[in-house]
Amino acid sequence: MSLQTIINDSERLLLGEQISDVYKKDAYVTDVVDVQAVALVKTTDEVRKLVNYAIEQDLKIIARGAGTGVAGAQVPIHGNELIIDVSQMKQIIELDEATMTLTVEPGVLLSEIQEYVESRGYFYPPDPGSKHSTIGGNVATNAGGMRAVKYGTTRDYVRAMEVVMPTGETVELGSLNIKSSSGYDLKNLLIGSEGTLGIITQIKLKVLPLPKYKQSVLLAFDSVTSATDGVLTILSNGIEPTALELFERGTIAYSEKFTKELLPLQLGDAYVLMTLDDNEMQSITRRVKVVEQLVQNKAIAALTLNKEQEKSAWKLRDYILVALMEFTEFEMLDEVVPINRFAEMISYTKELQRKHGIRVINFGHAGDGNIHTVLMKEDLEQEIWTAKREALLADLYEKVANLGGLPSAEHGIGIIKKSYLEKMINPVELNLMRKVKNAIDPDDRLNPGKLI
Amino acid sequence: MSLQTIINDSERLLLGEQISDVYKKDAYVTDVVDVQAVALVKTTDEVRKLVNYAIEQDLKIIARGAGTGVAGAQVPIHGNELIIDVSQMKQIIELDEATMTLTVEPGVLLSEIQEYVESRGYFYPPDPGSKHSTIGGNVATNAGGMRAVKYGTTRDYVRAMEVVMPTGETVELGSLNIKSSSGYDLKNLLIGSEGTLGIITQIKLKVLPLPKYKQSVLLAFDSVTSATDGVLTILSNGIEPTALELFERGTIAYSEKFTKELLPLQLGDAYVLMTLDDNEMQSITRRVKVVEQLVQNKAIAALTLNKEQEKSAWKLRDYILVALMEFTEFEMLDEVVPINRFAEMISYTKELQRKHGIRVINFGHAGDGNIHTVLMKEDLEQEIWTAKREALLADLYEKVANLGGLPSAEHGIGIIKKSYLEKMINPVELNLMRKVKNAIDPDDRLNPGKLI
Ligand SMILES: Cc1cc2nc3c(=O)[nH]c(=O)nc-3n(C[C@H](O)[C@H](O)[C@H](O)COP(=O)(O)OP(=O)(O)OC[C@H]3O[C@@H](n4cnc5c(N)ncnc54)[C@H](O)[C@@H]3O)c2cc1C
Ligand SMILES: Cc1cc2nc3c(=O)[nH]c(=O)nc-3n(C[C@H](O)[C@H](O)[C@H](O)COP(=O)(O)OP(=O)(O)OC[C@H]3O[C@@H](n4cnc5c(N)ncnc54)[C@H](O)[C@@H]3O)c2cc1C
Repeated sequence: MSLQTIINDSERLLLGEQISDVYKKDAYVTDVVDVQAVALVKTTDEVRKLVNYAIEQDLKIIARGAGTGVAGAQVPIHGNELIIDVSQMKQIIELDEATMTLTVEPGVLLSEIQEYVESRGYFYPPDPGSKHSTIGGNVATNAGGMRAVKYGTTRDYVRAMEVVMPTGETVELGSLNIKSSSGYDLKNLLIGSEGTLGIITQIKLKVLPLPKYKQSVLLAFDSVTSATDGVLTILSNGIEPTALELFERGTIAYSEKFTKELLPLQLGDAYVLMTLDDNEMQSITRRVKVVEQLVQNKAIAALTLNKEQEKSAWKLRDYILVALMEFTEFEMLDEVVPINRFAEMISYTKELQRKHGIRVINFGHAGDGNIHTVLMKEDLEQEIWTAKREALLADLYEKVANLGGLPSAEHGIGIIKKSYLEKMINPVELNLMRKVKNAIDPDDRLNPGKLI
Repeated sequence: MSLQTIINDSERLLLGEQISDVYKKDAYVTDVVDVQAVALVKTTDEVRKLVNYAIEQDLKIIARGAGTGVAGAQVPIHGNELIIDVSQMKQIIELDEATMTLTVEPGVLLSEIQEYVESRGYFYPPDPGSKHSTIGGNVATNAGGMRAVKYGTTRDYVRAMEVVMPTGETVELGSLNIKSSSGYDLKNLLIGSEGTLGIITQIKLKVLPLPKYKQSVLLAFDSVTSATDGVLTILSNGIEPTALELFERGTIAYSEKFTKELLPLQLGDAYVLMTLDDNEMQSITRRVKVVEQLVQNKAIAALTLNKEQEKSAWKLRDYILVALMEFTEFEMLDEVVPINRFAEMISYTKELQRKHGIRVINFGHAGDGNIHTVLMKEDLEQEIWTAKREALLADLYEKVANLGGLPSAEHGIGIIKKSYLEKMINPVELNLMRKVKNAIDPDDRLNPGKLI
């Protein structure tokens, strides 16, 4: 069977010159390699046939969603990969209210899911900043986002998924059953596997009832150290925030420039943006009061946001990365440490700024111990930037490892963090991962060279 | 190295005649086979050495906790297995309040964990009826229990665990980080693997703040069908019960006989025992009122229990299985179906009672769609009992499969449900499980013949 017989629609099969550079590189992997073809699939059956074709022709395969990944995982590095782009598999199939399950194709965008369920009184908690990423990509990277501190990550909302395996076989992993002790948990193995074990073609998501009320509060601090102190105080006093984001003035400034909006508080060097949700407004009001008292001697200002301010503040937060991409050259990290080591880690990034002479600013999902440290190129020359950055990263990841942390909380390993993962985790564990990959994909057909 | 050099304490190394029948059979697997030795280990190092010894001598290994498993998973079937009994690894190592993590050895009993954390203001939600099971066994079976409807199963409370792999290597899977997208999720693969992939030697559990208030309510119904109707009404009205147990008069009667206590309500054919917990008593009171209204035309009585009644009702619930074991011969199942199919499944068990002439009674974790259907031998002759039971089980599991259910919600597959699992799940998935087992334990050394 030829590619043309499988994808019987020339608009959905890109070859040679038709393949735009978007598919070949991104901000992270800039060495362009050749691509065999890009197939914009519409059905599971097409995916299955393409995998069989790749087996016949001995091609490597990369599954791709919206391409918003920031670990280089969706970019070809091998040469001659067949890219299976699922972004046109974008049906919302069914909202089953009896089991609170939303069935979707993998190309549906996160923003579409959120709007769809919220307009029907339901709630899909995972909330990465990239609202235009696909749900398939979210599952493949175990995306986190703003509400993980209370609600967990994408992993926690996948009830079941249909996957085309590297053998070309289709299988459903997981089920609508609330509990199971019926064999190995393969569903969780596939979640976060970055397209290296199977291609996700349908997903059954768990949704919750939409909480009736929410309220955001913005706290300003004179330094990032006082802000981390504030975060830990909030977490250890039973406030149960839905979101607890931290960002430095230096990061949000880019967002302000990009969106042309201003953060409702303009004083201080670091901010904490918090949301509380609940079915009883009383409980929110009570907790907001407690927070105000708790941070009285730590924050320089605490502002309970009205709906307009709330919208603007969250927009600014969501746009940090987009704005950085627009205006600067940088490397963004995704380290995570146990929550009691969070303050120490943030302070250490500032120490590294002094030591290595690279400007370092932070933002991140403070409630999860997840920091997006950003190394700024500024006007450093390319060679010096590369050398200094590598030296800084070696120090930084050593510290992360010493604190019991990991290189990626939510973005994935891809190609960018592979060498650090290899250094940071136990060789026995790494070897186990390789054994599993080899057992499921012995020809290394799916996303070769990524993750492990 | 000899076994005696590894376990340098004759009281902890049982050989030949010293090995009691407890290790060789249980209610589920009654064919006694020979056992090489039973080692009552005290340290991870002893476990590691024993695994290396088993590799040298080409022995099979079974890890064992308290032996309360009800799937035959901890019982030797191969002959000449080396049993590694971890029940003496029973140190509670540390409660780290900063990360809300309790570190324990695998032989610590569930009841000990619950008492330890509750006396310090914390809460370990998983709550299987078998309070004298070990936490290692709970993790190895992904035990469920009474509070899964609100809080999830054992899986959801394992942050990290130390495991001795079939190669004799030791590895820690998981971490204290709240989020991770750093490679394959091997921790979840090991959880629920019933001792077939590794031996758990230490566990880091997540604990929560202890909810301030709780309140139990007992509902009596004239039939099991009205009771399932009541359950679904409670679930679909945002009551968020912590526990929602259903049992027929026929099951609780055994408990009453065993404990010599009486259920606080004595009318009706079926009961629902519900607990609500919260940090605000007001919210509980409000929800109890809603429940009373909701079931007004469904239940024949609704009783808000005082502390003494609550204790007694839950004791009766917890003792159902022990009491059945004391007084009768039976087979207990652990099927689970999607929650919207729960009522249909329960009704069908009653149909099977009529069709096959075996008395069928049910109890179970109604909030999870998990039913413990009990087939009663009563005075059937052995041969007839076996034949009728097999015919009934074939029908029953076919129905479970048709409803999208699974053979085990929480007890595991072990040896008892292996043939049903093989029939019920997709051959592609089964084959994937086998590939994973083979990749991690190519010599089939750990718990051979179990699960898959
Ligand atoms: C502005 C911005 C903000 C962001 N904020 C966050 C955030 O808050 N939290 C967060 O976690 N991430 C964030 N990200 C990262 C990114 O959006 C996520 O990793 C997202 O999950 C990727 O989805 P995608 O559809 O773009 O996947 P892609 O980039 O297309 O692919 C990512 C990976 O998933 C695999 N994949 C995609 N689809 C499939 C499929 N159907 N089957 C199998 N494998 C598949 C690919 O092979 C690749 O390995 C952000 C990115 C940007 C640009
Ligand atoms: C009265 C009663 C009530 C029960 N109620 C419930 C309930 O409500 N919910 C529920 O889920 N279960 C329940 N069970 C079943 C049983 O208690 C659970 O399966 C429990 O988790 C088994 O723990 P154990 O320590 O007894 O393990 P064992 O019976 O010793 O072993 C069970 C399995 O775990 C493996 N295993 C044990 N320890 C380890 C280890 N350290 N490393 C690797 N593998 C190991 C064994 O190899 C075996 O496969 C009940 C049982 C009884 C008798």
